Amino acid sequence: MTTEPKLDIEVLFAELAALGRISEAEPPIVTRVVFSEADLRARAYVKGLFADAGLAVEEDAIGNTFARWAGSDAQLAPVGTGSHIDAIPNAGSYDGTVGVLGGLEAIRSLQRAGFTPRRSIELVIFTAEEPTRFGIGCLGSRMMGSVLQPAAALALSDKDGNGLEALRTQAGFAGTLESVALKPGRFHQFVELHIEQGPLLEQEGIDLGLVTAIAAPASLRIRIEGEGGHAGAKLMPGRKDALAAAAELILALEAAVKSTGAIDTVGTVGVCEVFPGAVNSIPSLVRLETDVRDIDAARRDGVLHALQDACADVSQRRGVTITTELVNADPPAACDDAILAAMESSATEAGKTVKRMVSRAYHDSLFMARVAPVAMLFIPCRDGVSHRPDEYASPEWIAGGVDVLARTLARLAG
Amino acid sequence: MTTEPKLDIEVLFAELAALGRISEAEPPIVTRVVFSEADLRARAYVKGLFADAGLAVEEDAIGNTFARWAGSDAQLAPVGTGSHIDAIPNAGSYDGTVGVLGGLEAIRSLQRAGFTPRRSIELVIFTAEEPTRFGIGCLGSRMMGSVLQPAAALALSDKDGNGLEALRTQAGFAGTLESVALKPGRFHQFVELHIEQGPLLEQEGIDLGLVTAIAAPASLRIRIEGEGGHAGAKLMPGRKDALAAAAELILALEAAVKSTGAIDTVGTVGVCEVFPGAVNSIPSLVRLETDVRDIDAARRDGVLHALQDACADVSQRRGVTITTELVNADPPAACDDAILAAMESSATEAGKTVKRMVSRAYHDSLFMARVAPVAMLFIPCRDGVSHRPDEYASPEWIAGGVDVLARTLARLAG
Repeated sequence: MTTEPKLDIEVLFAELAALGRISEAEPPIVTRVVFSEADLRARAYVKGLFADAGLAVEEDAIGNTFARWAGSDAQLAPVGTGSHIDAIPNAGSYDGTVGVLGGLEAIRSLQRAGFTPRRSIELVIFTAEEPTRFGIGCLGSRMMGSVLQPAAALALSDKDGNGLEALRTQAGFAGTLESVALKPGRFHQFVELHIEQGPLLEQEGIDLGLVTAIAAPASLRIRIEGEGGHAGAKLMPGRKDALAAAAELILALEAAVKSTGAIDTVGTVGVCEVFPGAVNSIPSLVRLETDVRDIDAARRDGVLHALQDACADVSQRRGVTITTELVNADPPAACDDAILAAMESSATEAGKTVKRMVSRAYHDSLFMARVAPVAMLFIPCRDGVSHRPDEYASPEWIAGGVDVLARTLARLAG
Repeated sequence: MTTEPKLDIEVLFAELAALGRISEAEPPIVTRVVFSEADLRARAYVKGLFADAGLAVEEDAIGNTFARWAGSDAQLAPVGTGSHIDAIPNAGSYDGTVGVLGGLEAIRSLQRAGFTPRRSIELVIFTAEEPTRFGIGCLGSRMMGSVLQPAAALALSDKDGNGLEALRTQAGFAGTLESVALKPGRFHQFVELHIEQGPLLEQEGIDLGLVTAIAAPASLRIRIEGEGGHAGAKLMPGRKDALAAAAELILALEAAVKSTGAIDTVGTVGVCEVFPGAVNSIPSLVRLETDVRDIDAARRDGVLHALQDACADVSQRRGVTITTELVNADPPAACDDAILAAMESSATEAGKTVKRMVSRAYHDSLFMARVAPVAMLFIPCRDGVSHRPDEYASPEWIAGGVDVLARTLARLAG
C-alpha cells in the first residue's frame, strides 16, 4: 500500500476559483490567451502557489514552467505531471487548470502525508496549449517534443501580425528557442490529469477515465478570394461571393465527417472571418479555420481529402480562388502500459471506478509522448461541456482525480 | 440656351484625390465611417472648400450639412443637390464624393460663368448614407424625410455599444433630433449626381444615366444561437453548430434570389460574425446581416419570406434558435418628370448621350423623395465596380456629369 494522500479539497477549489477570475473577460467567462496580460497574471499567481509549496521554479525560453519537488535521489530522471492554464475566448475554469492546480494539490497532499519521493516530481505548465493566438495547438509541448522546430516557431504570428519572438520577449521569456526541446530521458514518465471534455464518464457513472490513446487532430486553413462590389448594384450572374463559397465548404466538411459513419470522427469550422464585412458589400475574402479529428488517422485524412475536393469543386464552379494550408496533422499517441497499470492500482486502492477510453481532444501529453512514456487521467465534466463558461467539474470528481493522481505519482516516484 | 458652365476639372480631380486620402486605412483604401476621426477631418476639409466658394454653411443636429449659394429671391425655396462623404470599410474615392465635390464644382462653374440664380442653390452632405456603423443606411436623409423617427434613432448603437446620442454629441452636433426632419417645401427640387455603381453605362458607351426610379432595399438581421463546446470532444450527433446553420441560410438566400428569374433581384450576406471564433470551439452564436433589393417591392418581399421560411426550417432541423429583425424595408421612389426633362435638355445642350434607367443601389434621394421632387444623374464607373479601392470614374465621365448637373441647376434655379 502506498502513502495515503492528505487532500485539502477546499483550498484547491478556492485556488481554481481564484485562477478562473483572472480573465480578459468578465467572470465567469474565462478568456486567457497566451502572453496576454491575463495569462501573465495567472502565471504569477500559480508560481506564487508553487513557491508556497516549496517547489523550485524554472522557465524555458517559450514560457514552459517547471516546478520541482526534489526527490531523495538527484541522479534519477523526474516523474512529470501538469497541463496548461491558457484558455480560449469564452472558456471555463477547469480545462487545463485542473491538471496544474490539481497536480500541485497532489504534491501537497503527499507532503502533508510525510511522503518523500525518490525521484523528483516536476509539475509543468505548458505554454499555449490552446491554438487561439498562433493558430497551432500545444505550442510549448510541441517544441519540447521537437515536433515544432525553432525556425517554424519563429515564423508564427497572431492575427494582428505580432510575431512570436516579440511576444515571448515582451512576456519576459529569454534564451534561444533551440533550448526548449527536451532531451530523451529528461522525464522518466509523465502523467496528465484533465477533465474529459466529453460526456461518457458522467453518463456511465464512472469516476475516472484511464486514457489509452490520444486522437490525432488536423487543422486546415482555407482562404477564399472572390470579388467584392456593391451589394445593390452588382447583379447576381457576375458575382464571385467569397462567403457563399465558404458556406458550401462549411456544409461540405460537415457532410464528409458524417459520411464516415464513425462516432469518433468530428469536424468543425470554428473561425470564419469575412472581409470587408459590411452589410451592403459583397464579401471579397473569407478565411476559414477547420479542425478535423479521429482516433483513426487514415479516416481523418479521408475527411481532409474530401474537403480539399470540395475546395477544388467550389473554386471552379464559382470562379473564386481557394488556397489551403495544412497547419498540423499530428499522429495519435499511445499511452504507456506501466503508467496505466499504476493508475489502475491507485484507483482500486482509493475505491474509484475506472474505464479505459480514448481522448478525442488533444493534450500536451500527445507531444510529451515523443520524449517520455505518458498517460492521462480523466475526470468527468458536467454534460460533457467544455470551452464554455458553464464548463464544470464537481468537488467530488476533482478530489477523486487528485487522490488517484497523488497515489500514482507516489508509486511512480516512490 | 442656359448659361455655359466654366468647369475646372483639374481642381475637382485634385480635391477628389485629397478627400480620398482622408481615410482610416492606408490609401488608396478609403474607410471613412460616420463620426470617426477620418469622417470629421473629411467634413472639415469639405466645409473649408464650401467657405472658399462663398457658401454659407449650416449643420443640423445629426450632422447633415447645408451649404447655401444665395439666390436673388430669398422668398423662394432653394434647389438642392448633394450626396454623402462617408465610406464603408475598404471602399474607393468616388461613391458619394462625386455628388458633393462635383456639386460644389457645378456651383463654382456657374459662379465663374457669371450666373446668378433666382432660387438659392443648396449643396447637402448627408450624414451616414452607409449603414456600416448603425446598421441602417441613409441615416441623415432618413431623418430629414421623417422615415426614421428621433426615438428610433436614439435607440441605435454601433457594434461596440456606443449609442447614437453619445457619438453625435462627441462629433460636435447639438440640438434636438426632432429638428432634423424637413418641412415639406423646404426644398423646391433635389437632384443628386452619383456614380452608377453598375456596369450598364460603360458597357453601352452612354455618357449619363437619368434615374427614373430608385430600387427598394431591405435588410434582415439574423441571430443564430446554437450550442458551443470543444471541437474535438463533442460528438457530431449532439451538435447545434450555429455556423453550419448560418451556412445553410447563406445558400438559401442565394437560391431564393436566383429563383425569381429577374435580373433586378439581388441578395447578399455581407456580415457574418462568429462567436467565440476559435479554431477548436464549436460556434455557439452567429450574426448575419443580409441585404435584398429589387425594383419590384413585392418580388423583394417574396425573397425575404423565402429566407424567413429557411430560418424556420433550419431552426427546427438543427435545434438552434433563430431570431430575425427587419432593419428596414423601404418603398421604391419614383423620380420627378420635370427634373428628368431638365436633365435631358441639359445633356442635349452639352452634347452628352443619355439613357433612362433605374438605380439598384439606394441613395439619399430615396428619402429626400419624401419631402421634395427628386431625380438622380448617373455617370459611368469602370467595370461597374464600387465599394472597393479600385472603384474608378474617369475625368471625362466626371466632367460630363458635373457639366450637365450645373446646367440642370441653372435651369431649375434660374
